[in-house]
Amino acid sequence: MREIKQIQNVYIKSYAAVGSLIEGAGRFSKEYDVILQDPLCAQDSWEKAESVFLKTAIDKALEKSTLSQKDIDVIISGDLINQCTSSTYAVRDSGISYFGVYSACSTICISTIAGALFIESGVGKTALTAASSHFCTAERQYRFPLEYGGQKTPSAQWTATASGALLLTNEPTGIKINSVYIGEVVDYEITDTTNMGAAMAPAAAKTITDYLKKTGKTPGEFDAIFTGDLGNIGTQLLYNLCKLENCDITANHNDCGKMLYDGTNIDCHSGASGCGCSASILCGYVLNRIKNKELNNILFCATGALHSPLITKQGESIPGICHLLNIVSA
Amino acid sequence: MREIKQIQNVYIKSYAAVGSLIEGAGRFSKEYDVILQDPLCAQDSWEKAESVFLKTAIDKALEKSTLSQKDIDVIISGDLINQCTSSTYAVRDSGISYFGVYSACSTICISTIAGALFIESGVGKTALTAASSHFCTAERQYRFPLEYGGQKTPSAQWTATASGALLLTNEPTGIKINSVYIGEVVDYEITDTTNMGAAMAPAAAKTITDYLKKTGKTPGEFDAIFTGDLGNIGTQLLYNLCKLENCDITANHNDCGKMLYDGTNIDCHSGASGCGCSASILCGYVLNRIKNKELNNILFCATGALHSPLITKQGESIPGICHLLNIVSA
Repeated sequence: MREIKQIQNVYIKSYAAVGSLIEGAGRFSKEYDVILQDPLCAQDSWEKAESVFLKTAIDKALEKSTLSQKDIDVIISGDLINQCTSSTYAVRDSGISYFGVYSACSTICISTIAGALFIESGVGKTALTAASSHFCTAERQYRFPLEYGGQKTPSAQWTATASGALLLTNEPTGIKINSVYIGEVVDYEITDTTNMGAAMAPAAAKTITDYLKKTGKTPGEFDAIFTGDLGNIGTQLLYNLCKLENCDITANHNDCGKMLYDGTNIDCHSGASGCGCSASILCGYVLNRIKNKELNNILFCATGALHSPLITKQGESIPGICHLLNIVSA
Repeated sequence: MREIKQIQNVYIKSYAAVGSLIEGAGRFSKEYDVILQDPLCAQDSWEKAESVFLKTAIDKALEKSTLSQKDIDVIISGDLINQCTSSTYAVRDSGISYFGVYSACSTICISTIAGALFIESGVGKTALTAASSHFCTAERQYRFPLEYGGQKTPSAQWTATASGALLLTNEPTGIKINSVYIGEVVDYEITDTTNMGAAMAPAAAKTITDYLKKTGKTPGEFDAIFTGDLGNIGTQLLYNLCKLENCDITANHNDCGKMLYDGTNIDCHSGASGCGCSASILCGYVLNRIKNKELNNILFCATGALHSPLITKQGESIPGICHLLNIVSA
C-alpha cells in the first residue's frame, strides 16, 4: 500500500545549484551557486558536458558543507540520458559508493528520498544526492540533434541545462526532511510526446491530493507547494484534476517548469523541464528560502514522464510519476 | 568513505526466477519458477515482452509469499533498456510506490540493497526488488537489431532473456541479508564494447578484496562467492587481479555468466550477461540452496558495465561497478 513515510533523523547540510547562460539570465539568476558560461564546458560532446554540470553541483555542495570526500558514505544520482551516463561519468573518480536512480525529471526527489532512507536506516551518516539535465543532450536523445534545427510545438517544454545536489546528514541542521511519499506510476494514456505536462499532471494530482487526504491537512497549512516540471499546460491540468478531488492548491502553488525561465527572453513554449529544472530550483530558490526561514514547511513534488523515445514509437502511452518531499525548517 | 553496512532486520520472504527457452534448457532449468516458452510473450515488440518477463517474476514472488499487492510498500526495479522502460511498464498498473534504479547488469544487487535500506530504516515493512534483461532488446539497443544478423566476437557474452524478483520483509524468515557493500565506479580504461568481462572484472576484484580486508575474513569462510556476469574471460581476469592482492577465491567462486548456459547447446561465447543473468541465478539456484541450508553464508557480487552505446562512440572508456550482498541462512 502506498503510504507516507515519516523521517526522523535526516537533515540537509548543504546544497548547490548549477545553471548555464539562459538559466542565469532570469528572475532566479542569483539563486544559482555556479553559472557555467560555456554550455559545452570545454568538452568534445554535450554528454560529457552534462557530466561536468553534475560534478560541479556535487563538488559545490561538498565545498559548502565543509566536509570532505572521505566523509561521504554514498552518492545517489540520476539523469535523463541513456544508461544514466551523465551521473556515472561525473562520479567515476570519486571512490565513493554510488548507485544510479531513474525517475526522469523527478530524479532529484527520488535520489534524495533514497539518500534519506540510507541515513534513516542508520547504516550511513552522509549522502550526496543529485540530478542533472542538458538541453543539447536531451534534444539529441528524445527529439533531434541540434544541427537538424527541429521546431517545437507550443505544448513542448525547454530542457534546463542545469544540475542540483544536496548533502544529507543525520546531524541536525536548520533544514529537515520531515516526510517522504514515493510516487506510483500513473498513466492517463497520453501519447503526445510534445506534451509532457499533460502526461505528468495526473501523477502530480494523485500524489498531492493523496498526501493531503492521508495527512488530513489543507494546502494552506504549507507555506508553499512546488511541482516540477509541469509547465503552463501541465499546471492548469493539475489545478483542474485537483478540483475534481475538491482540492484547491492555487493559492500557494508554483511549478518549477513555470518558474525557471521567468524573466528571460527565451521562448520556452510551455515552460522548462528536465531533471535539472526541479533540481536547480530546489537547490537554489527553495532551499535558500527555507534556510532563511522565509519558508518553513513546504511540499516539493517533482514530476517525471517515464517513457522512452522507442516505446512511444511502438504505440505505448506515457506514464507519469510524482515523488513528494516534505521539507521543514528545524 | 566506502564502508560495509551491517543490516539488522531484513529478510528474504520469497523470490522467483523467470527464463525463456534457452535458459530453461541447461543445467539450471529446474531452478526457474517459470519458463516462458514464447520469448515475445504474445506482444508486438521485444521491449513489451521484457516487461512481461519482469512482471511475471514480481507476480510469482508475490504469489509464493502469500502476501497480496496491498501488503507491498515499495517496488524497486531496473533493467538495461533506455529510460528503464521494462521496469516502468511492468509495474504501471500496480498502484504501489515505485522507483527505478540503474546499475547495468548489477541491478538485482542494487535494487535489493535499496529495498533493504528501505526496510532497515523502519519506514516500510516490505519491498519487492527486481531486474530483467532480454536478448532481443539488448541486441537492438547495444548492438544491432536482430534482423541485421550481426556477428559476435569470441569475447562477447549472450544477454539472458530472464528476470528475477525478491520480496524483502522485516519479519524473520530462513534467509537474512546480513550486510551490503555498495560499489564504487572502477574504470580500467577498457574501450572494447565486445569485452564486458574485462570492463567489469576490476570492479569485482576491488569489491571482493576490499570486503575481505575490511572484515578480516578469508574466502574460505564463505560457502560460496558468486560474481555476475563476468563470463569466462572476466572470471580469469578477476582471479588474476585478486592474486595481485594476495587473495585466492578460486576454491569457492562461481560466476553467473559462466553458469547460466552451462549444459545448453547455445554458443554463448564468453558466457551469459544482462541484468537477468545474475537476477535469475540469485533468485533460482542460489536462494534455493540457502533455503535448503546447502549454502549458509554467501557473497553475491553482481557486476555492471556503466557505459552507453553513445558514450563509447564518443571515445569514452567503460566503467564497471560491483555491489555485494552477504546473505546468510538464519
